[in-house]
Amino acid sequence: MTLAARYMSARTLDTAPVEPSPPGPGEVELAPAYVGICGTDLHIFHGDMDARVQTPAVLGHEMSGRVVSVGPGVAGWRPGDAVTVMPLRWDDTCPACRAGHQHVCQHLDFIGIDSPGAMQQRWTVPASTLIRLPESLALDRAALVEPTAVAVHDVGRAKVAEGEKVVVVGGGPVGILIALVARAAGAEVRVVELSAHRRLLAEELGLTAWDPAADDVPELVGEWTGEAGADVAFEVSGAAGGVDTAVDVLGVRGRLCLVAIHPRPREVNLHRFFWRELTLIGARLYDRGDFEKAVALVADGTIPAERLISKVVPLAQAPAAFEALEGGGNVMKILVDCTDDAQGVAV
Amino acid sequence: MTLAARYMSARTLDTAPVEPSPPGPGEVELAPAYVGICGTDLHIFHGDMDARVQTPAVLGHEMSGRVVSVGPGVAGWRPGDAVTVMPLRWDDTCPACRAGHQHVCQHLDFIGIDSPGAMQQRWTVPASTLIRLPESLALDRAALVEPTAVAVHDVGRAKVAEGEKVVVVGGGPVGILIALVARAAGAEVRVVELSAHRRLLAEELGLTAWDPAADDVPELVGEWTGEAGADVAFEVSGAAGGVDTAVDVLGVRGRLCLVAIHPRPREVNLHRFFWRELTLIGARLYDRGDFEKAVALVADGTIPAERLISKVVPLAQAPAAFEALEGGGNVMKILVDCTDDAQGVAV
Ligand SMILES: [Zn+2]
Ligand SMILES: [Zn+2]
Repeated sequence: MTLAARYMSARTLDTAPVEPSPPGPGEVELAPAYVGICGTDLHIFHGDMDARVQTPAVLGHEMSGRVVSVGPGVAGWRPGDAVTVMPLRWDDTCPACRAGHQHVCQHLDFIGIDSPGAMQQRWTVPASTLIRLPESLALDRAALVEPTAVAVHDVGRAKVAEGEKVVVVGGGPVGILIALVARAAGAEVRVVELSAHRRLLAEELGLTAWDPAADDVPELVGEWTGEAGADVAFEVSGAAGGVDTAVDVLGVRGRLCLVAIHPRPREVNLHRFFWRELTLIGARLYDRGDFEKAVALVADGTIPAERLISKVVPLAQAPAAFEALEGGGNVMKILVDCTDDAQGVAV
Repeated sequence: MTLAARYMSARTLDTAPVEPSPPGPGEVELAPAYVGICGTDLHIFHGDMDARVQTPAVLGHEMSGRVVSVGPGVAGWRPGDAVTVMPLRWDDTCPACRAGHQHVCQHLDFIGIDSPGAMQQRWTVPASTLIRLPESLALDRAALVEPTAVAVHDVGRAKVAEGEKVVVVGGGPVGILIALVARAAGAEVRVVELSAHRRLLAEELGLTAWDPAADDVPELVGEWTGEAGADVAFEVSGAAGGVDTAVDVLGVRGRLCLVAIHPRPREVNLHRFFWRELTLIGARLYDRGDFEKAVALVADGTIPAERLISKVVPLAQAPAAFEALEGGGNVMKILVDCTDDAQGVAV
């Protein structure tokens, strides 16, 4: 038996022994090492996604780990290989897949939401989901690859180009990663974030951060851009005010990349879209190319992953970590250490 | 003295003799032949744009006519040449102009709103605004070139490609022109329009038109596209429900081209933009290339301009025509005949 962190019902996560499932044809059994807790995991924990999630549900989709064993017919992988997982399974038959957009398959299985996730000591996944990690990349840092792939996808959707001026609205983990990826693409970046703690971290990473409660952000953007407005804005806050800010800062033909989830319709200044010929671009998840680029960016230090890791807790303390994160607090990324060594119990 | 139709105050248009201004350096004096009444003219007539319009204001920017005389330094034009006017003057110095988007100049002078328009017997404009018309093109049909240029710009902004499925929400003059231009680009088109009269005209032009009050438009689009959703939607209605319909009909990576003016913010289903990776594209006015393409489409009959002209009235009856249009009614495009012959008075 091995340990797993399982969502049971609103605000209840437990850790319990589960029976590992041996890898079937085309599958691989992994030993997860580190698993990041992300906003979606917190939404599930809060009970917001009960209509979608089948309990008990093992959470976790931001992971690093090693191959333990491979099932029949799996070529190219062997025990000990360092990997991360692109947690998507698609049906290859729906209109989205047929159009080549498998990552937004109309029947997408997001592993860690729709099927069991990585917060456990053993995890069996299709070999097709594996992404190889270089041995030089520490596994705790590698747990940041998945959110970095989100950022790579978003920056790609927005077609950020060298020399462009970019405003990131929302300075949580994904916002900071977008800022860093955009900077690596040659853009000048400003981050808009309410939390002083997060602004401080952004500044420590060499980013300029503005406080929307104290600063007149559109005015600052005007000064910064010679009244031209920004080329690109990313809305990562999920707040109504974040949408307004992202629209207000853009210049003629500016692109607003919509990253955050807005469950309810939002009032949008459509007149500005018309008047300035703005573009709004929805961006969701990633594809294999995004993941591979993210591995490279984390491995070469472009993404200083270690600076974004606030805390590492063993699997048995995952429930307490979720409760602490629900209360907000001054954290960026918390990792759950799923290694056998960390559990203090025999496997 | 020559006659001009002038907006005086809300719901008051008069016709009055005005002194023609001889063309200065770089200018050309035109004899407008036909001038279309468009939605913006009606907004002005209704008093909605009093903050922008300086009275008395000669309206009109959808025109055809002939050169009467040319000012000093004007080359390439001579009396009798058939022309239309791209009614834009830009400053060439603002950030939009410097970025090559002069048509959305931050200090744009839209001729016919911000400076005197074409609803008069003589009209002096910069030679740089002239677009040559082929002699084979009847001048009444040529008055449709300007709204056709809008449609060409919109279809270009949405990058409509051969074989794509396109939904046009709103079947007024601009919506019908977009549908025709998209069809000419090889798209399959459906028009969504509340007015039975306008649906009938669309059908007569070989378009399929749906009634959003009677039909379940997203369901019809599902059947039409094999549940894939449309590739492109144009929102031309200006109604809140029109925005919803345009979002609902789009498939994965669909593009929504926003053509209509929405003076107030609208609730938009941003979650759908995220989930399906949709794009919203603002589109405003046109450039010279759009105008030249529009001339070709009207001249070669791709745009059956004569079918869109509901009525032609002499200049003296322009006020009555505005009043009739305000009441709605079963019309598409009304042209004001500004030729000297039509006025029944000596010039
Ligand atoms: Zn699919
Ligand atoms: Zn300008």
